[in-house]
Amino acid sequence: MRIAIDAMGGDNAPLEIVKGTYLSAVENPAVDILLIGDKAKILEAFKEVEGEFPNNVKIVHTNVEISMEDDPMVVMKEKSDSSMAIGLSMLKENEADVFLSAGNTGALHVGSTLMVRKIKGVRRSAIATILPFKTPILMLDAGANPEVTEDILQQWAIIGAKYAEIMLSINNPRVGLLNNGTEEKKGTPVHQAAYQLLVENENINFVGNIESKQIPHSPCDVLVTDGFTGNIVLKLIEGLGMYMFSSLKDMFTSNLLTKLSYTTMKGQLKEFKMMFDASEYGGAPFLGLSKPVFKAHGSSKAYDFYNAIKQAKRCCELDVIGTISNLL
Amino acid sequence: MRIAIDAMGGDNAPLEIVKGTYLSAVENPAVDILLIGDKAKILEAFKEVEGEFPNNVKIVHTNVEISMEDDPMVVMKEKSDSSMAIGLSMLKENEADVFLSAGNTGALHVGSTLMVRKIKGVRRSAIATILPFKTPILMLDAGANPEVTEDILQQWAIIGAKYAEIMLSINNPRVGLLNNGTEEKKGTPVHQAAYQLLVENENINFVGNIESKQIPHSPCDVLVTDGFTGNIVLKLIEGLGMYMFSSLKDMFTSNLLTKLSYTTMKGQLKEFKMMFDASEYGGAPFLGLSKPVFKAHGSSKAYDFYNAIKQAKRCCELDVIGTISNLL
Repeated sequence: MRIAIDAMGGDNAPLEIVKGTYLSAVENPAVDILLIGDKAKILEAFKEVEGEFPNNVKIVHTNVEISMEDDPMVVMKEKSDSSMAIGLSMLKENEADVFLSAGNTGALHVGSTLMVRKIKGVRRSAIATILPFKTPILMLDAGANPEVTEDILQQWAIIGAKYAEIMLSINNPRVGLLNNGTEEKKGTPVHQAAYQLLVENENINFVGNIESKQIPHSPCDVLVTDGFTGNIVLKLIEGLGMYMFSSLKDMFTSNLLTKLSYTTMKGQLKEFKMMFDASEYGGAPFLGLSKPVFKAHGSSKAYDFYNAIKQAKRCCELDVIGTISNLL
Repeated sequence: MRIAIDAMGGDNAPLEIVKGTYLSAVENPAVDILLIGDKAKILEAFKEVEGEFPNNVKIVHTNVEISMEDDPMVVMKEKSDSSMAIGLSMLKENEADVFLSAGNTGALHVGSTLMVRKIKGVRRSAIATILPFKTPILMLDAGANPEVTEDILQQWAIIGAKYAEIMLSINNPRVGLLNNGTEEKKGTPVHQAAYQLLVENENINFVGNIESKQIPHSPCDVLVTDGFTGNIVLKLIEGLGMYMFSSLKDMFTSNLLTKLSYTTMKGQLKEFKMMFDASEYGGAPFLGLSKPVFKAHGSSKAYDFYNAIKQAKRCCELDVIGTISNLL
């Protein structure tokens, strides 16, 4: 198996990517990792790693990067020699089996749609992300498509359920539609039409409209929504989690007695923080593409990349994309 | 001043409404409160209150109620003798100065638009709700209009800023547009067009696109968004707050040591819970209407109603609606 990785994408490139790659490469000597980016910078970063440069890591050199400010619509043409474009091209040309990047999400979405292409019949590819509650929820779309139709939402329900079944080992996943109320007439005309399609589709275990306040209690395994709302939900959970954790920290450091409590509660507080930590789930796949492309969070650290690579590898091993293609 | 109150709306009607009304009536003997609903049930509920039936409370009898399941589009015609419809009619006919209900939001929105009517030139009325962070944010729309245009968002920015200025005493309120990224090209075409209108409008202190993860840090005083997204945000904050608080409780009761910590931390934990409690801010006004209509949360208790009545009274005293009307 050959895993192509964009070494130059995200806030912590290339250092954390190199560290994560090292961990994966050592653990999986039979897997080839193709690290795409500035060779000098990658080798410089490798000096921070305690250990030899692994034999199964190959550097594919380019010093062109895509920044977060680059316009997704033109970047693939103008920067066809960037680390992201090269990775997608390698995937397309069958020189890699999966591609992973923590770079510009919009560029990765547009680029993968143009170069890797979607599964035949699929209208839009979606970012499928895990909301890390006690029972995890696979939410799609998390940000690629601000506007959708009912047909697109229905396709995502089918694709997301299959992904959850294989990758998260959930039998007959419960699918919910994110809406502003549980009644069937709630939301925009698109939500109302999607509700009908989902209710009538016997291949989908549809559990109805899901209100956002229910989300922490995992009322479904797969939550479908447009990419605008999904992005708002994802970032609000992230922002509130961090805010509450820092408020709690302030509480515990307010006086001597509370500081004593802190030492008692340290373990539990760590668990509390973990509730909002999606690192364990690694990257988020673009579902609907004919080949596997994973997006890692822009702020990913070594351990996140390590997990993202693990997910990418598992997705290939289980031929998730092939199974989804055969469904549609 | 005459405050009309729907005694039959919400999960805790009429008991908690009656209790809240009693507190307000005793505190404000010069204000007349018109309690609309089933006279026998209201008087029965009053037995739970320790004190005399206040002279300044008048019961307007009806035994017709609007339920949460009633279709907002037809309910005003079919149930024109319901407590909600009577209240709106009294406001329209100048028999009351403000109306407050904890009932069916959709019915209240449709009903108030039909009966009370909007301010001339206003395209849609919005529910303006307070997100109760350290620095509160006035968010509109919180759920009345799932679909909007850029012009509507611009109007809400103007109306919301004036409301925040008068009611929350904020000088030159910072207005933000909820979006899936801070860059000006983010979101749907409606968001992109709204961004341009807001940037170019010199009467609006526009601080740009706001990502949901920033919300807890109050990057703006007024946050404009469509009612679908606003509703998702409002309910997610509510749901996550409750979920985290109950997770914390579990943490503190897990063993003897943590239970000891709990006694130490009790005060701080209460403060933590208060962070997600909007009770202090009472009801949410429907902004854009020519007369003041307030919506109380369906699960409101006596103290929430007391605060909602206080807000409604203040809104009249300060002639907020008149000032907004003159603006447009």
